[in-house]
Amino acid sequence: MEYYPQTELDVENAASFLGISVQRMQELMERRVLVPNWNEYQHLFRFEHKALHIDIGSVLVQKDNGFSLILGFPKIKRAMLLGPAIKSNFGEIPRVAVEEKMNGYNVRVILLDGKLVAITRSGHVCPYSSEKVNSLLDHNFFTENPQLVVYGEMVGPDNPYVPKEIYRIESLEFFIFDIRHKNTGLPLPLYERRSLAEKYGFRQVRLFGEFDIQEASDMIQHIIKDIGRRGHEGVVIKDPKMVLQPIKYTASQSNCSDLQHSMKVFNESGRDFIFSRIVREGFQSVEWEESEEEFKKRCLRLGESILRPMKESIIKVRDGDRVAEEFTIRVKDRATISKFEEYMRRLGMDIKFSEPKIVGKEYVVHMIKINKSTSDKTLAMWEGQLWS
Amino acid sequence: MEYYPQTELDVENAASFLGISVQRMQELMERRVLVPNWNEYQHLFRFEHKALHIDIGSVLVQKDNGFSLILGFPKIKRAMLLGPAIKSNFGEIPRVAVEEKMNGYNVRVILLDGKLVAITRSGHVCPYSSEKVNSLLDHNFFTENPQLVVYGEMVGPDNPYVPKEIYRIESLEFFIFDIRHKNTGLPLPLYERRSLAEKYGFRQVRLFGEFDIQEASDMIQHIIKDIGRRGHEGVVIKDPKMVLQPIKYTASQSNCSDLQHSMKVFNESGRDFIFSRIVREGFQSVEWEESEEEFKKRCLRLGESILRPMKESIIKVRDGDRVAEEFTIRVKDRATISKFEEYMRRLGMDIKFSEPKIVGKEYVVHMIKINKSTSDKTLAMWEGQLWS
Repeated sequence: MEYYPQTELDVENAASFLGISVQRMQELMERRVLVPNWNEYQHLFRFEHKALHIDIGSVLVQKDNGFSLILGFPKIKRAMLLGPAIKSNFGEIPRVAVEEKMNGYNVRVILLDGKLVAITRSGHVCPYSSEKVNSLLDHNFFTENPQLVVYGEMVGPDNPYVPKEIYRIESLEFFIFDIRHKNTGLPLPLYERRSLAEKYGFRQVRLFGEFDIQEASDMIQHIIKDIGRRGHEGVVIKDPKMVLQPIKYTASQSNCSDLQHSMKVFNESGRDFIFSRIVREGFQSVEWEESEEEFKKRCLRLGESILRPMKESIIKVRDGDRVAEEFTIRVKDRATISKFEEYMRRLGMDIKFSEPKIVGKEYVVHMIKINKSTSDKTLAMWEGQLWS
Repeated sequence: MEYYPQTELDVENAASFLGISVQRMQELMERRVLVPNWNEYQHLFRFEHKALHIDIGSVLVQKDNGFSLILGFPKIKRAMLLGPAIKSNFGEIPRVAVEEKMNGYNVRVILLDGKLVAITRSGHVCPYSSEKVNSLLDHNFFTENPQLVVYGEMVGPDNPYVPKEIYRIESLEFFIFDIRHKNTGLPLPLYERRSLAEKYGFRQVRLFGEFDIQEASDMIQHIIKDIGRRGHEGVVIKDPKMVLQPIKYTASQSNCSDLQHSMKVFNESGRDFIFSRIVREGFQSVEWEESEEEFKKRCLRLGESILRPMKESIIKVRDGDRVAEEFTIRVKDRATISKFEEYMRRLGMDIKFSEPKIVGKEYVVHMIKINKSTSDKTLAMWEGQLWS
């Protein structure tokens, strides 16, 4: 493992950059609101808590005694009832743009010491995603637009977080959904962002179109039904000028797919995660004025999404196996594997890595994460323990 | 409203009765671990927290400077997998007895100053339940067995807590499931309890029979399927000697009925409540080795239990109504109505009472409890607010 000298935060200049007192700055460090990243990224300080109106996951970058702030992913609120939500949130503009919300994981990309760096939602530098963006994105964008940050979704099966086959992607691709200014976090207007991304050959999330406020709800209903049929996730509805807050809306099939995943590992999964998916189904069903037949289909889909994966896990444990999740990563640089392994370990993830297999010019590694809590609890039930 | 002089706890004698120091006793009072009941029941002190190995809801009764302790309802643990749970918990005895678990609310009954008093699970004296037990139970039991406490389930439609039509009960009935000694909480053996209760003409929960440990799981599966078909709740499996801890097990239809109720008022209901009902369905489905067809029926039943009541609430609010629960009480003594109203208010329940209507020799009062949280949240969605 390489040795990286420790970087000290220049507290005085950082305080001045953030417009706070030195004492307040020291406090933020001591209380671990601001925490340095690891290894060669010790000069990237992530916000582990919200402070100074700066969201969790934002990153303060110290470079040659200068600073920049990479703001976190703005939380996009969810419409429960599409029609009322569109009217209430976009009532003052004539038209909204609708882009696809893809099912993967979010990273922000910046250029640092000649290399692209991928920062996750929580503000960590992910070594795997970083390798990927270096080959997926044209570096010229970053040298020519040093004040901009690229926000996008990592999507595809070779994915250590959210592996999905649904997009017919062979390995892993990066889809831009936002470009924002450093320090202020201000977004580029939608069409400006799309043409800039296009200029550099970036892949982007799909734009379904722009719709009058009056017709938007009906149009999105059609789009969402199609998205659902294809197993995709949903949409984000945006003010083309990016002044009003965007809102998101998802297909029933995507809610159910979330439920499937969380009920497979039922003892690990958050009660709120499950509850929120269920509630979405209720509102969508009412707004879309389903027939009794369609409603029963929805009920069956919901029930099966909950029970089938749980049933499979219980049977697996009965038959002596353990409940586990499997992931695959595919890298060009063998060193990325050990970096990623260290990274997972540092995050407290207990994951087993297979020996790398050479496929073409790349290394493929399979990873397995045992879901200990679900496995143990289920085994205890088979051994006759009582629930509580 | 009548005036009741305040009763002081005789701290010294109470401490000596509980086998603790006077200082510890004072501490329990000051920290409100032990809290007096209201009005004429100020000499009944309920445990609002577990302390001295005494469960929440237990009640210390001070009477003529003597004391007795009415222990709370022992928590009955739940089997997730019937077969393994029976083997593991009752492996050392040859046979288990199976009684019905009814769907109502629990009260304990004692005689106090010549009247029967009904104490709820939390240790409150419920004025409504108290009136009821006075006419439902033979007082001779209590004068002839002053050391015993009767534990049972209040069941039927005229029920301010869990109104159920499922038992074909006209108004409200009381079913004994336990008789225990004061102070120690020791239960009578099952058959002794049943014959004693029978002697005094008490109604009792149904005894399905006694089964060999080997066959119990299969037999109970049949019983539970029948219970489910009739919309009843479940069973409690007991050591006839009442030495080993009993365990409970419920029908899928009862789990789903719980879900129906909680999803009607979805924003009020506990996430854990919902989750636990779902998990039961998964384990039952695996243990009973259902066919794909039966499994799909179960999935549909689960899905409908979740979505249909929620859908109805959302539509109700869209149409200008509010989500509410309705209850009915039926009393002989008109004074019980105002006592119960005061009691509900003291418990912090916001409930509207109708004018009493005379039916036969009784007064019938309808009560309505607006589910403010669910009503408000749903209305906010119709007004276009975002979920979060």
